[in-house]
Amino acid sequence: MTEKAAPAPLARTVVQQCVHARLQVSPPGPDSEAEWVQVGRGMVIYVCFFKGATEDMLPKMVSTLLNQRLCERPSGGLASVLDLQGSVLVVPQATLGGRAKGRAMQYHGNISKDDGLRLYQCFVSLCQAQLQAAGGETRGGAKGAGGETRGGAKGAGGETRGGAKGAGGETRGGAKGAGAEPEVKHGTYGNRQVLQLDTNGPYTHLMEF
Amino acid sequence: MTEKAAPAPLARTVVQQCVHARLQVSPPGPDSEAEWVQVGRGMVIYVCFFKGATEDMLPKMVSTLLNQRLCERPSGGLASVLDLQGSVLVVPQATLGGRAKGRAMQYHGNISKDDGLRLYQCFVSLCQAQLQAAGGETRGGAKGAGGETRGGAKGAGGETRGGAKGAGGETRGGAKGAGAEPEVKHGTYGNRQVLQLDTNGPYTHLMEF
Repeated sequence: MTEKAAPAPLARTVVQQCVHARLQVSPPGPDSEAEWVQVGRGMVIYVCFFKGATEDMLPKMVSTLLNQRLCERPSGGLASVLDLQGSVLVVPQATLGGRAKGRAMQYHGNISKDDGLRLYQCFVSLCQAQLQAAGGETRGGAKGAGGETRGGAKGAGGETRGGAKGAGGETRGGAKGAGAEPEVKHGTYGNRQVLQLDTNGPYTHLMEF
Repeated sequence: MTEKAAPAPLARTVVQQCVHARLQVSPPGPDSEAEWVQVGRGMVIYVCFFKGATEDMLPKMVSTLLNQRLCERPSGGLASVLDLQGSVLVVPQATLGGRAKGRAMQYHGNISKDDGLRLYQCFVSLCQAQLQAAGGETRGGAKGAGGETRGGAKGAGGETRGGAKGAGGETRGGAKGAGAEPEVKHGTYGNRQVLQLDTNGPYTHLMEF
């Protein structure tokens, strides 16, 4: 092995592109149904912070994740989620910090819950700000291709089966791709992240910071 | 950071637990529909090999992945996929080898396609062998809970919506959980991995070897 070993990371993300993703943000209660958020074409960011992570690393981290060519263009080749004007679903995922010790996984390197929540909220806000800023720059030319903005991909809790046919055919959910307004949705920190993911190839990437 | 930096890995996996997962193994042709495989409750292993990976590392790698407590018990706490008698879906995922260089991702560390295919096939075979061996040991006591073996989760290409209600409610697909025979399914190396994933929380873990 001649590669230089990287220092231990302060944050770990796994990124997957999606044509539709749906995440539970509030579990069902005795008198209430579960609440969900969903996004159409774009990417899912699973994020975990380690001890030592601080807010001042977040702007560059978010900028990298949104600008790095981690998604596929429909025409082939990789592009960033901002290039694609795709949406982003952020999923807090403390398990990503796991290290094997025997058959068990240990999470001793993970940040405390309070600090993690603060960083997570800041991370989501920065994603929203950067996606909005990028959308403001490019929206004029690209919005409304196909005449449909929003529509099928909205309505948390509603059934929006059918709709878009992806390259693989049979994609579930009302994912729109071009035409849908880019948006950031995110899971509830500390909750169970009940997730349904549809991809035309997840293109899973590991990005550490 | 006082942690010792790990050496560069020879293989990288990302593991997610699922209640149902469906993967395209053959794209649609002019006269044929796409072919799919699917699994019920268990885990998805996304796998990428780096230059220098060899077959002799695979038995330990597979044993670790199948015995490590990377999944959740319905009752809480982590358990291995063998403990749970769950199924395994193996997804070849070369993108996992990506390294950022500017805004682009580079995959120079990835193994060659020929060597990767050979390792991938061996990896899948070992998963099948270890899952079968474990099933042979424990099947007597656990098989047929609920009186249903196989059933809804079978039938690639068929529509098997509805069925199991997971902890999050509204799980799509005919995932069975207890009662389904554990099995290994896998994607076609080099193909686009069109994937549909349903989870009660992906419990995403990174495991490197």
